[in-house]
Amino acid sequence: MHIVIVGGGFGGLQAARALARRDVTVTVIDRRNHHVFQPLLYQVATAALSPGDIASPIRWILRRQRNVTVLLAAVVRIDAEGKRLHLADGGSLSYDYLIVAAGATHAYFGHDDWRASAPGLKTMEDALHIRRRILLAFETAERALQGIGSDEAGLLTFVVIGGGPTGVELAGALAEIARHTLKHDFRNIDPSRSRIVLIEGGPRLLASFDAAHGAFAERALARLGVTVQTHAMVTGVSTTGVTVRDASGTESQIPARTVLWAAGVAASPLGRAFPEHIDRAGRVRVNHDLTVPGHPDIFVVGDLATLNGPGGTPYPGVAQVAMQQGTHATRNILRSIDGAAMRPFRYRDYGNMATIGRAKAVADLGWIQLRGYIAWLAWLFIHLVKLIGFRNRLSVMLQWAWAYMSYQRNVRLITEEDPGA
Amino acid sequence: MHIVIVGGGFGGLQAARALARRDVTVTVIDRRNHHVFQPLLYQVATAALSPGDIASPIRWILRRQRNVTVLLAAVVRIDAEGKRLHLADGGSLSYDYLIVAAGATHAYFGHDDWRASAPGLKTMEDALHIRRRILLAFETAERALQGIGSDEAGLLTFVVIGGGPTGVELAGALAEIARHTLKHDFRNIDPSRSRIVLIEGGPRLLASFDAAHGAFAERALARLGVTVQTHAMVTGVSTTGVTVRDASGTESQIPARTVLWAAGVAASPLGRAFPEHIDRAGRVRVNHDLTVPGHPDIFVVGDLATLNGPGGTPYPGVAQVAMQQGTHATRNILRSIDGAAMRPFRYRDYGNMATIGRAKAVADLGWIQLRGYIAWLAWLFIHLVKLIGFRNRLSVMLQWAWAYMSYQRNVRLITEEDPGA
Repeated sequence: MHIVIVGGGFGGLQAARALARRDVTVTVIDRRNHHVFQPLLYQVATAALSPGDIASPIRWILRRQRNVTVLLAAVVRIDAEGKRLHLADGGSLSYDYLIVAAGATHAYFGHDDWRASAPGLKTMEDALHIRRRILLAFETAERALQGIGSDEAGLLTFVVIGGGPTGVELAGALAEIARHTLKHDFRNIDPSRSRIVLIEGGPRLLASFDAAHGAFAERALARLGVTVQTHAMVTGVSTTGVTVRDASGTESQIPARTVLWAAGVAASPLGRAFPEHIDRAGRVRVNHDLTVPGHPDIFVVGDLATLNGPGGTPYPGVAQVAMQQGTHATRNILRSIDGAAMRPFRYRDYGNMATIGRAKAVADLGWIQLRGYIAWLAWLFIHLVKLIGFRNRLSVMLQWAWAYMSYQRNVRLITEEDPGA
Repeated sequence: MHIVIVGGGFGGLQAARALARRDVTVTVIDRRNHHVFQPLLYQVATAALSPGDIASPIRWILRRQRNVTVLLAAVVRIDAEGKRLHLADGGSLSYDYLIVAAGATHAYFGHDDWRASAPGLKTMEDALHIRRRILLAFETAERALQGIGSDEAGLLTFVVIGGGPTGVELAGALAEIARHTLKHDFRNIDPSRSRIVLIEGGPRLLASFDAAHGAFAERALARLGVTVQTHAMVTGVSTTGVTVRDASGTESQIPARTVLWAAGVAASPLGRAFPEHIDRAGRVRVNHDLTVPGHPDIFVVGDLATLNGPGGTPYPGVAQVAMQQGTHATRNILRSIDGAAMRPFRYRDYGNMATIGRAKAVADLGWIQLRGYIAWLAWLFIHLVKLIGFRNRLSVMLQWAWAYMSYQRNVRLITEEDPGA
């Protein structure tokens, strides 16, 4: 039996691991050679960690699992009838069972022209691009504001769009960079006078958390000097700034040279293989056993899938759901091979966390709600435990300890994106 | 008095530091925001260290020196008569004294068309590009050689051109990657059967070292499985391989998909400001006080300068020479400001080292010659001490300890070079 897994993110990797020592042949296909620990991606984007600290080669992670082959390739088409995957370079691959865990990217709600001005944060390349944008903003201001001092052009204004965990974490880290990290580094500008604006369309931050957590995050960010605007719809993004419409319908302009996108998510285009089963965001509406309706040999898990939980609300697009679905899909495949009936997926929610700048966090663990320093310690502990690879854990721990003591972020490199230029 | 330093490499940085607490205004200009510890660049290229481990922002290194301003900018022209530098974006800057420490890049001996097929290693971008090429070679072979097993197309052949320290270090690291690091990672190919060829035009490796060191390096590389070809002139480089002419004049073809360039060096184009004083490699022939002939206010230091030592041979293009020249130039400037006579530069040679794969090195320290494990320990110690920043030192030490115990290289990330693509 040949099981093909598309995607080496949380869902795909968990599925591959769950098949260790089973009598099946497994192929994992990903367009990148590395698995990224996405919850810490914002720390690469804000120069606190190196890419190598939170990413590992997928074939290295699975090297001991002799029944797994890893391929670096892009899947362009799923031929569900022929049970075959077509790859970007013309090759193809047949399967007996298929697990599609291709994830999601950021979406601009139909405004794809915003993409160039407001990069999002999903891949390692995104993180390095954002890091470059943030650091270049200060360098540009240092040269342009020499002797002027005013920031009418928004050179030192940073706008983060989206008040979920990623937006809150980015805004908090930006505040720390501006107030502490760069304190002594410039001569013409005062980085601590940077303006950081966090824009959220809904009524409060961290909508997926307990309401008290959202209020706590808003107060904590305000103390860090972040301007939080809720009930604010973004109606325009350009290289010079952001246009925002408030609850009363009044539009205003925020001049800003650096805009980061932490708002919408769109599923991988691979979902379009099942056009009659995708929702507005491109996710595949799967059966309770995680198969695609009409295709008992094809499973979709993680951010590319959508499935309602017992309460009728869809499971959130978080790592925990993807991992549990990855495991569940493989169990159903093994049951199917054995001729047994598949079982419905049930999500065990272990909770939700977000950090807010330095040494503060919120944690919604179901049985307990934590806020502040203690939540941050819990966040540290859980993220260290979940990171893959002992070396990564040790390296990240060391760098966090160093950053905590020194207020420094040492991966502040601006590297060119096209070395051929 | 305004002293402008062009370049934040070893020479420029050392010059800026030597001006701490002096009553002068200093501006350091560099096209990159970071200083790179070049002796460890090959470790980034071979996935052993992260970019952030061996690079630090120039303005961070100099943050406590209140008389120094750091500018991220490219100098396009030196107006020696008007005492003014012109920058790429149209700005300009006047100076009283100028120290040009703009360094060198790789040269292809008039064969610039080889550049695309045989990347060189001078900048961080170069290192990331080479890392990508090396890792992609194995990925491509894993897909292409599925079920074939032969390597007629040179998919698993790596050619390193140039038998100096960089070439020896790259070839040794490639051997370690192929024989140890990737041992368990592939299913279709056997990375340990990769072919690694080191090509040197001269009669022996490590020409700038004691002859016994060259012979030791050749034996050590052979034991690692590297094919060393001396007296071999490269006459052609393409995407499919390298053409080599041996001592007898016979040409042969080495099929290879991955070719790395560690041979020629060309000085920064800024030297062309003094056309009557540059040599064939574009270096500026400076006076013994390090000034440019006819320009007592302009100093050139490091790889961009050429100057004969007492024996009549030019000082080598190494970090030690650049650093000592940087310090010497600032001393001469301070003497000139005080109305005193400038003094000639004298090089104190503390020695020369190169590693050969894992746990082996050669060290030519003048008063003592070391080879093997003890030389490697000396190499480790000296490079850790010379690295800038406590965090970097600790991080590198940790990663080396980990790599030594595990044979692993954990920064094996293939990141796209153009995230917009």
